[in-house]
Amino acid sequence: MPSYTAPIKDMQFVLHDLLNVAADSTPGYSDLDAEFTGAVLEEAGKVASEVLSPLNVVGDTEGCVLENGVVRTPTGFKEAFEEIKQGGWPGIDLPEEFGGQNMPYIMYTAVGETASAANQAFTMYQGLTHGAASAILVHGSDDQKATYLPKMTSCEWTGTMNLTEPHCGTDLGLMRTKAEPQGDGSYKLTGQKIFISSGEHDMADNIIHLVLAKIPGGPEGIKGVSLFIVPKFMVNDDGSLGARNGVSCGAIEEKMGIHGNSTCVMNYEEATGYLLGEEHKGMRAMFTMMNEARIGVGMQGLAQAEVAYQNALIYAKDRLQGRAVTGDENPDGPADPLIVHPDIRRSLMDQKSFVEGGRAFLFWGSKLIDQSHRGGDEAAEGLVSLLTPVIKGFLTDQGYDMTVLAQQIYGGHGYIEEWGMSQFTRDARIAMIYEGANGVQALDLVGRKLAADGGKPIMAFFDMIKSFIKENEGNEALKADFLDPLKEASKHLQASGMYFMQNGMKNPNAALSGSYDFMHLFGHVCLGLMWAQMAKAAMTALEGGASDTSFYKTKIATGRYYMARRLPATAMHLARIETGAETVMALEADQF
Amino acid sequence: MPSYTAPIKDMQFVLHDLLNVAADSTPGYSDLDAEFTGAVLEEAGKVASEVLSPLNVVGDTEGCVLENGVVRTPTGFKEAFEEIKQGGWPGIDLPEEFGGQNMPYIMYTAVGETASAANQAFTMYQGLTHGAASAILVHGSDDQKATYLPKMTSCEWTGTMNLTEPHCGTDLGLMRTKAEPQGDGSYKLTGQKIFISSGEHDMADNIIHLVLAKIPGGPEGIKGVSLFIVPKFMVNDDGSLGARNGVSCGAIEEKMGIHGNSTCVMNYEEATGYLLGEEHKGMRAMFTMMNEARIGVGMQGLAQAEVAYQNALIYAKDRLQGRAVTGDENPDGPADPLIVHPDIRRSLMDQKSFVEGGRAFLFWGSKLIDQSHRGGDEAAEGLVSLLTPVIKGFLTDQGYDMTVLAQQIYGGHGYIEEWGMSQFTRDARIAMIYEGANGVQALDLVGRKLAADGGKPIMAFFDMIKSFIKENEGNEALKADFLDPLKEASKHLQASGMYFMQNGMKNPNAALSGSYDFMHLFGHVCLGLMWAQMAKAAMTALEGGASDTSFYKTKIATGRYYMARRLPATAMHLARIETGAETVMALEADQF
Repeated sequence: MPSYTAPIKDMQFVLHDLLNVAADSTPGYSDLDAEFTGAVLEEAGKVASEVLSPLNVVGDTEGCVLENGVVRTPTGFKEAFEEIKQGGWPGIDLPEEFGGQNMPYIMYTAVGETASAANQAFTMYQGLTHGAASAILVHGSDDQKATYLPKMTSCEWTGTMNLTEPHCGTDLGLMRTKAEPQGDGSYKLTGQKIFISSGEHDMADNIIHLVLAKIPGGPEGIKGVSLFIVPKFMVNDDGSLGARNGVSCGAIEEKMGIHGNSTCVMNYEEATGYLLGEEHKGMRAMFTMMNEARIGVGMQGLAQAEVAYQNALIYAKDRLQGRAVTGDENPDGPADPLIVHPDIRRSLMDQKSFVEGGRAFLFWGSKLIDQSHRGGDEAAEGLVSLLTPVIKGFLTDQGYDMTVLAQQIYGGHGYIEEWGMSQFTRDARIAMIYEGANGVQALDLVGRKLAADGGKPIMAFFDMIKSFIKENEGNEALKADFLDPLKEASKHLQASGMYFMQNGMKNPNAALSGSYDFMHLFGHVCLGLMWAQMAKAAMTALEGGASDTSFYKTKIATGRYYMARRLPATAMHLARIETGAETVMALEADQF
Repeated sequence: MPSYTAPIKDMQFVLHDLLNVAADSTPGYSDLDAEFTGAVLEEAGKVASEVLSPLNVVGDTEGCVLENGVVRTPTGFKEAFEEIKQGGWPGIDLPEEFGGQNMPYIMYTAVGETASAANQAFTMYQGLTHGAASAILVHGSDDQKATYLPKMTSCEWTGTMNLTEPHCGTDLGLMRTKAEPQGDGSYKLTGQKIFISSGEHDMADNIIHLVLAKIPGGPEGIKGVSLFIVPKFMVNDDGSLGARNGVSCGAIEEKMGIHGNSTCVMNYEEATGYLLGEEHKGMRAMFTMMNEARIGVGMQGLAQAEVAYQNALIYAKDRLQGRAVTGDENPDGPADPLIVHPDIRRSLMDQKSFVEGGRAFLFWGSKLIDQSHRGGDEAAEGLVSLLTPVIKGFLTDQGYDMTVLAQQIYGGHGYIEEWGMSQFTRDARIAMIYEGANGVQALDLVGRKLAADGGKPIMAFFDMIKSFIKENEGNEALKADFLDPLKEASKHLQASGMYFMQNGMKNPNAALSGSYDFMHLFGHVCLGLMWAQMAKAAMTALEGGASDTSFYKTKIATGRYYMARRLPATAMHLARIETGAETVMALEADQF
């Protein structure tokens, strides 16, 4: 059975050596000294390893079962959910007034990575609740907050997000679910929603559904969509639970992975709902949560890559097969461990340099969220809006690829379910799809974010890179291995942006044909920047006499790998982008 | 439910416009006129669409069940297997004297692609039989051939290949299964084999296991391995079946995919076996089949990509979601079909240009097999030996990636099992692993094939490209879009080979660190060559007044896409290769 150990040392390195959180002026950050974050992560890691990880295979094997309208979660999930609740984990970053611990979002991300790596399907129950609670927190009335948030912060009640319908996913303007006003401030919702994660289950007393629907007579399309709170059980004025509402689970989907999470078809039959936010402003209300939700999915991609890598590494050190080409390294054994082989190293280094670089990127994005939400920093808000589709799209695409690499190290043992490597791949696959399929992320990036606010955020991003290179250009240890490749990759990103600007106006397809490559090019530049900064941080630590020299030297070596072996992808993406739409759009639909 | 239609027109284009098989002097090729191959493929395609494809999801859902030592295949498999047998498909390329049809291997490949695309798990039962029969054909005594081949050619008896043991896969020298000589020419085999595809099932009267084992007292390691025929039921002198042999299925594996094929743990307990070929020459006997078997797996990768692409295309034309950025294309409908969106096009063109280019590569490799086996052409033998790891590694890696792209087009519907897209991905995953994991293919390519026969095959490959470019350099229609990019990509391949030659001797790790990138670089150059040649063939057809101009124009446009958007990967692979072993091997094992 696979195992998981929270990479606390790596996380601490990112929080403190790289991002220096405790010295940051963002409200709440001064509490985040190394001792405090270490203690939180230690405890979170323990829960992940001891409670969540052992249930990962159980969840995959048993799945969820729907019987007579009730969904039974896999053996042990209920008890584990109790432990999570008692530990106060679900509300770690939610306001104290509703029972949360009010930690910064960056801590929610770090803790979330450990939980998600250990058991993605399980962690989604609290993840969806967190998303729904955040929406109520921002858009809810005082009454709504008082009614729902305390119970959702503790996960006594869980939450869901209902967007997709059978005929519409990305294009929510086609939505058919209707909300009829009842004259008393409430609405009756009727329609069908699909792919509702955690839509029905047996781990909470109540489930608070956030549902997008159209109020008859409102504007056509996406502009006529409103957001509603639809509780599974009505909530009485005294907070006790009342009658069952007109919402039920019609089916649960058989899926490629995340079997432990119930993906439900939800039927609304004159279900009572309450408007959340303003009429017809449902999409805006959803969008406020979008950056966080998408960063959360990027985190999932990274988390599966991390746990898959950990297990690939164990196997690569353990499995004896073949001999090192440069001479036996385990002469007393029947063969050398897999890790002696260069191609196994290539695979492990791909994985290692991605998860460590990706984590830095993810935590940096989370810090920007805090700077924006807690610190009111508009530049941070602009930058994280720009980076969000990259964090989501790049980390989930590459994260998935890394689980495939990790699985490959097991050979045939990676393909059978016994070793658990297949599950990491199957679970990781969903993150490329939900919360906006990655093609939609690329479209959002190129079609919307790049030109947002007159291009200020992207300019700020390039300025960051330029400043970093300039500040360190005298640093010989950084120059050839880090600064030069970063400069080169950054030029490719700029050239792509330039290509879009020069061609996108007269032919939008010329820009959109390169959107996916651009998202990946951007992701590589971000990880290149992270690695250059981490290398500098590691060098600084070594110069400062840090005792664990091996740890910091390993960081630098891993960064050098990324710069030398992964970053060259940027030139390829640029070459593809610069071919424009011509070959992409050459065929008529019936020529396919 | 997904569907499958054999791409007969594309196949005919490769066979006749590109490879001009009927005019080839290879024995048997003069029969392969367009009418004949068209009729065979038409019939094969009908079986694939009507018999095999509908059972694909059934096989995935039901899987195989082991009860009291007997494996039950999924509903309908038995009846379908009868149809396949009655059609004479399993022995299409086997000798007439044993009941086969003696067609060239290229036809076995083409027909195999249709069957494998429609139902990979099912098709493996005959595929393994074919492999075992081929081994007996080459290495068996006259008696052995007479005893086994007629029944195996018809698939009344099926076959298996037993190599892997729990502690050894790639490194078969560690093998523990023993074969004790009995003094009467027979042996008693004892040991355990794992991952035995089609190891036990209910569709044949007998199963002929080919088993690698060690004869005590023989040489150490891989040089002491011999190959044995171990029938499930003993065969009497009159050909009737006798007692059950000491071989049984101990378990069937739960796998990520190919659930319809029984992947067995096989236990040999003093099972009677007969030496196939010479003592201690078992690996050599296996290797004779290796090229064909590996090309067959490359075919599987391509086949899953083809069927996944077909279904992605159907959905992209059917699903209405969003509007074209350049103006509504379906103004009377609620939205435009997915296929209007540039990023969907990018994905579809990636898939289309891969499957068509990959098929040309695959069929070319199969033609080389025929030229070698039927024509005794040593240059062809050398070239196909060189190309085999590329066909296997590149087509299965890229084929898998294409199934992931196809799945992505379905959004959330691609993740649930209902639409069948997840199965294509899960089934395709195995082809990267079995018959030599792709890392081993890369090692074989760089460590063995590149320098084989003094480098003659690789020189011959480069000469082919040079000649083609030279012959056509006056062709303006080909030059910029096809010849120039091919020349560039080919230079990258040559530079990589040069790097290996200059650095591999003093540090083998410097070459092996780049082996995987080299395999992919090589694959791209091969597909670039195929596309350049196909573009020329299409232009020739158009100049010759071919009536279906749209078909040929589509070929050229698809080729232009490949050259412009896929081939630029070669520069990236070269850049990675030229960084050598330094960053790959920088860490000590305990630094990971």
